[in-house]
This record gives sequence, structure tokens and C-alpha cells, in this order.
Amino acid sequence: MKSALISVGTELLMGQVTDTNAVYLSQQLNALGIDVMYRYTVGDNDGRLTEVLDLALKDCDLVITTGGLGPTEDDMTKETVTKYMNDTLEVHEPSRQAMMQMVKDQRYDLFTKNNLKQTLMPTRAEVFDTDAGTAPGFALSNEAGKTIVCLPGPPREMKRMFERRVRPWLEPKTDCVISYETLRVFGKGESRVETEILDLIDAQTDPTIATYAAEGECSVRVASKRDTLEEAKAACIEVADQVKERLGDCVYSDDGRSLPEVVGEKLLENHITISSSESCTGGMFAEFLTDIPGISEVFERGIVTYTERAKIEELGVSEKTLADETAVSPNVAQQMAEGLQKKTGSDVCVSVTGIAGPGGGTEEKPVGLIYIGCTYKGSTVVKKLLTRNMSRSWNRRHAVLSMFDTINRMLDGRPVPGSDRRELL
Amino acid sequence: MKSALISVGTELLMGQVTDTNAVYLSQQLNALGIDVMYRYTVGDNDGRLTEVLDLALKDCDLVITTGGLGPTEDDMTKETVTKYMNDTLEVHEPSRQAMMQMVKDQRYDLFTKNNLKQTLMPTRAEVFDTDAGTAPGFALSNEAGKTIVCLPGPPREMKRMFERRVRPWLEPKTDCVISYETLRVFGKGESRVETEILDLIDAQTDPTIATYAAEGECSVRVASKRDTLEEAKAACIEVADQVKERLGDCVYSDDGRSLPEVVGEKLLENHITISSSESCTGGMFAEFLTDIPGISEVFERGIVTYTERAKIEELGVSEKTLADETAVSPNVAQQMAEGLQKKTGSDVCVSVTGIAGPGGGTEEKPVGLIYIGCTYKGSTVVKKLLTRNMSRSWNRRHAVLSMFDTINRMLDGRPVPGSDRRELL
Repeated sequence: MKSALISVGTELLMGQVTDTNAVYLSQQLNALGIDVMYRYTVGDNDGRLTEVLDLALKDCDLVITTGGLGPTEDDMTKETVTKYMNDTLEVHEPSRQAMMQMVKDQRYDLFTKNNLKQTLMPTRAEVFDTDAGTAPGFALSNEAGKTIVCLPGPPREMKRMFERRVRPWLEPKTDCVISYETLRVFGKGESRVETEILDLIDAQTDPTIATYAAEGECSVRVASKRDTLEEAKAACIEVADQVKERLGDCVYSDDGRSLPEVVGEKLLENHITISSSESCTGGMFAEFLTDIPGISEVFERGIVTYTERAKIEELGVSEKTLADETAVSPNVAQQMAEGLQKKTGSDVCVSVTGIAGPGGGTEEKPVGLIYIGCTYKGSTVVKKLLTRNMSRSWNRRHAVLSMFDTINRMLDGRPVPGSDRRELL
Repeated sequence: MKSALISVGTELLMGQVTDTNAVYLSQQLNALGIDVMYRYTVGDNDGRLTEVLDLALKDCDLVITTGGLGPTEDDMTKETVTKYMNDTLEVHEPSRQAMMQMVKDQRYDLFTKNNLKQTLMPTRAEVFDTDAGTAPGFALSNEAGKTIVCLPGPPREMKRMFERRVRPWLEPKTDCVISYETLRVFGKGESRVETEILDLIDAQTDPTIATYAAEGECSVRVASKRDTLEEAKAACIEVADQVKERLGDCVYSDDGRSLPEVVGEKLLENHITISSSESCTGGMFAEFLTDIPGISEVFERGIVTYTERAKIEELGVSEKTLADETAVSPNVAQQMAEGLQKKTGSDVCVSVTGIAGPGGGTEEKPVGLIYIGCTYKGSTVVKKLLTRNMSRSWNRRHAVLSMFDTINRMLDGRPVPGSDRRELL
């Protein structure tokens, strides 16, 4: 089944609200094996909504609208859709009674006669009652077998109605199910990833393989559409395994977990303690790590040594090294990690020093040059990064992800690309 | 001018990614006085993108697409748009040279020939170069005076290109101008702010006044659409001043600057040094502060003391206080700030300790209980927060903003609500 989503609301076009409904419904419909071909956003305007309905129903059998079912004057989705489907509105008795009950229960601070507008429904409609708001939803079909489903705009009301009423109503109508596996990749850019699996991508019709660039990393999605969930899942896993084999250990998770989550769980499971010392990332590593609930069991401390004095006092970095090689050098990264280790005794001690930009770059130390140090089990790995990016926040984020990647590899006893391993000083 | 936005990407239709580009561009275009009539989302599909272009250009003079400019096979926006506008693609020399320079600088793990695809541009195009990625964007117009602008999909690349190249290019083309003043508010929730200025909101047709809730703070936007920028600006400032008078010193900026930016600039202007000690926020304060370029002139160091041991060793917090009053107590907040001051000698020393949640709350120390300490000019202010929020990230973010608000008020010599001032221990 092919579908389209229409979000109705002028506030969306003003950019005042982020449309989370369209994201939620896209996920839900795809999971039901219903393809989402288009998403539209239109203002509360009869003419433009009608134009969009025309285009949507040309290709699609199912259209779901959200928004415009409210009690106020500018809410016109129900009226437009009813007219579009050649039906008329009349009071829907169960909805009216439910509304009256709410008033009786005083679940209403202010009841206005506009609310009665919400109890009008198309005569042929399948009505979806609400238990999270005042606006019922409905499904309305025409002779051509096209269906428009109208749901309320407030995300909480809409999701509740979809789960309680719409999904059970849709399930028997769908012909197949989709399952997918998402592989998250760090250390290879999207174009490189695609180049390495291009033959697999081209070879497949189902499961399909697609690559996506995320901030500082990328992911590969394997999706299969079959009659049963078991078939779809099996097909995905088989292809996902081939992709994993190709990309090697740059694939750090196959269940959607982020790199910090993967590392955090390894630390917690094996009760490995960790401390961090950061310069250019200014505490972002510690912040990402401590975003994981319960991490206090293993995270001992983090030190942001933003000045040379702080590096010397907190981590015992040598003044001479700072003078001879500057703060952005492999030896300073090593001394930061090892100084932190001496101070805290944590099992893993990670450090970072670099030039995040946009200023501060020089000929031989350009913006994007970053050194990461990581001391674990009696030796220190020092990794050099040179990003292709002038954006301060991108460089900071990429450096932090590289720190997690380095730790992840060292915890597994795997080599760290672009690094050298050093004996403790 | 009427416009439409088209977000291209199958991943959007799968609901794997939230489309923040459309929200950003809606705000930006409205601010330029360009009405956004429609937003569309289509997959990476030539036929469906063409259909949507037809509908969009029927009503609109300007269409902006995001996504599908990547190096990979499924990226086809540029090809489809070029064909649609009856132009052809050829190598764009400046883009090719920029790409080659990136390769030369080794700002590339592996350069693949499909990156060259990104240096092809329509012959009639106005090309927008990129400094945040590998995909240039472009604007392409036809005889009918319709224009399609194609921008990259990754939000950071897209926003950077819009600000650097597209907005300046659009500004002279808009027929009327919108000016707006954004007042950023900390310490009052959106509904309270709205209640306090409701009569002003209702009284205005132009300038309009709108309130927006952001994470942990809110803002008030005063917008006026006039023939000249001077008129619009004057109208906005007059109304903004009335709003400021109502809301008092909870308004911390009237030029869009964030609270960290406001504080960072005050510190830099007056060369006031600062250090931070964080527990529940795990480095987020230091990360926000160091997101400001050049802040290294005044930011001395940040310490994330996530364990009691770290609080004792790094900041000299008393074991007895920790035992008697627990780490989440006003005295520990004070000792953290003052211990940091003794250690670093920084002019401003700020601390935070609290229960971010979702776990770890108790009857008398619930989730959302947070204490902030700030030592400056010989005394320490200790502020108590009790959010009604169970979200870890919300609580952490709110705590960090409260730290900046506390510092901002102390730098100005203003009182800090909900705090008591203590003599140094």
C-alpha cells in the first residue's frame, strides 16, 4: 500500500513548531509495510489542502492528515476532507456523549460551544474516539477505494489515537511487513562506505541497502519487505552480515546504539573505571559520557585543562614539551593521559588536545589537527586526526567521537587506525 | 515572494531522521518576508521530485530543496533539477579545484571518484561554495523567473551555506522586509511570560509578538513587516522595549545571543578569569563555555568531580560534609566553588551538584534538586534549583543555564533569585 502524510498548520510553515507527527507516522507506517511516498505541510487553507490531496491521492491509496481538528475557526481539515470525499457532516452521537461526559467530569477548565464542532463527523466515516483530548479522528473512503485518515495535531493525542485505534484498524489492510537493520559506522566517510559495498547495493532488490551520513559518522540501513516479520528479519540479518564483513570493525553497532552508549556499556559491564582530560573539546567528552544514566559507577573524573598552566598543574605535563612542541603535539597528548592515570588510577585515561578552529591554525598546525591519547593496561596509544572541516563544533564533535572509538578499540584489544602505541613514560 | 521547501531523502520518509532543515528554513524565509506556502518531503526519486516541483512552482516563485547533493548513486536532486530547468551539468572549475585542494591537504580519508560528481554544476547556475562539507549548492532560474535553490542535506552544512551565501543572495530579491527583535528570557516559563504580556500580544497586529519555548528557557519574538527596514526596525524596538519593561531582568539578551555568549563576552571584555567544577552536569558547562571561540583567554580550567573522592582530592570538599549532608547539599556546592577558587585563583569559580535523574532520587532529595555555587569578589552565592522534570538531559541543561544566569547576575552586581550569599569559609 502506498501512502502520503499531510501535516496541516500554519505554525508549521512559520517554523514555530517542529513536526514530530510526520516522523512518528513515517516510522509506524513503514513498520506496517506501508510505503510513505510523500510528506506535505500546508497551512490551514481549504484551497491548498485540496490541491495537495489531489496530488497525494493520484499516487497513493492512503492519506493521513494531522492537525486542523481543533475547536477554533481556523481548524478546517475535517470540513475540507469531508467535502473532498463528497460526504457531509452531522453530529456523531457517541462523540457528543463523550464530550458531555467530559464536561460532567469537569475534565475541562473551559468548555465552549466550539467544542461541539468537534463532535461533527462525516456520515460515512469510521470514527476513532479519543481518550487524550477532545478531538476524535476518523477514516473516510470513497468509491475509488482511496482512504483519508484525519488525526488530531497535538503529538500526544495523535500517537495515543494511532496506537489505540488506527494501527489495529490498518493492520488487517496491509499486505506485507518491513523489517530493517541499522549498522552504525565510524572511521569511514559515506562515500567510502558506499564504494566498498556498491556491488552489494546494486545486487539487492530486497533487502535494499542504503547509506546515510550523520554528524561525524555514517550508517547503513538494510531493509526487507516480506509477507511475514520472520522472513523479513532473516533476510535483513543475512545481508547485514555481508555488509559488516565488508566494512570490518568500523561498524560499531547493529542495534542503533551510539558510540558513547557502546563504550559506556562495556565500561559498566566489566566495571572498568575511566577518567578524561580535555583541551580543545572543553568537556564535551565528559558530557557525552555522563549523559549515560548510572555511569557514575565507573566515571571517576574529568579535567578540562584549557590553559598550559592547568595542563602542568593538573596533569604534570612538562613545561619543556609545551615550549618545544606546543600544546597540540603527540607528546602532550601522551603526557596528559599518563598524568591523569598517575593522578586518578583509573583503568582508562583518555586525553585530547587540538585546534578546533575557526581561528588558531598555522601552516604546520592547521585547524582540524587533533591528538588523542589513551592509556590502558600499561601502554598509551596516541592517535592523530586531521579533519577536513573548519567548523569548530564539527571538529569538537568529531574529536570526541574519535576518543570513544579509540577507547572502544582498546577495550576490545583491536588496533587503533592512525595511531602509534607507546610505552608509559 | 511565495516559496516552497522540498526535503529530499528516503531516510526522511522512513522516519529515521527528523527534518530540522525545513524548520530552520521556514524561520529564515519568514524572517526575510518570504512566505512559505508548502513543505514537501520526497524520496530520492526523479519522477516524484519532478511532480512535486510542478506543484510547487505552480504557486511559488522560489523553491528551496535540501538533500540529494551527496557523492553517492542515490543522490539525484541536482540531476533532476538541472533537467527540470532545461540546463545541463558540466564540471564547475572552482568547485573541482576546491575538491582537489581538500585531497591535497589530506583532509580526506579516501578520495573516491564519485566525489567528482559533486563538482558538476548546471551551466547557468549561481554556485554556492561550501566550507563545511564537500557538496556545493546552487541557484538555478528559468525564463519564467522561477528559481530553484539546491542545498546540501546535513543540517550543519546547509545552515552554514544559507548564512554565508544564500541569505545575502536572497535579501536584495525580497519585496518587503521583515525586521524582528528576539528577546531571550531565562527564569520564567513560556506560559508565565505569555500571561505577563498577553494584553500586549492581543493589542498588536504589526508588530506581532510571539513566545517560543526553548529547552530550559524561552524567547519572545517581535516582528514587523514594512516597506523599509528602518520603519520595521523602529516599530519592533518600540514594542520590544515595552515587553522588556514587563519581564524585567529575566530578559538576558535582545540580539539573539545565548546566555553562554552573553557571559562569555562579559568575561572577555573585562578579562575576568573563570573556572568550573561540575558534578551532575558532567562537563556541559565547560563545553558550552568553550564553544565560544577565543574563550581560552579567560577560561582557566574545568573539573568534573563525578565521585566523592574527586570532590575531596580536586576541590578539598570535607569528608564530614559529604557524610553528613551528602554530595547534593548547599555546603558541598559552596565548598566546591571555594576549593576551586583556592586552587585556581580564577576570578569567578562556579560549581554544581545535583540529581539529574532519572534514577537516584529520594524522598528528601528528589530528582531535579540541584545546588549551584558561585564565588566572586570575596563571597559565595549558593542557589537552589528544584525542577519538576524527570528528564536527565533537561535537568542537566537547565542546571547549566542557571549557572550562566547566576554568573551573569553576579557580574552585573544584580541579586540572584532563590539564592543566599555567604562569607567565604
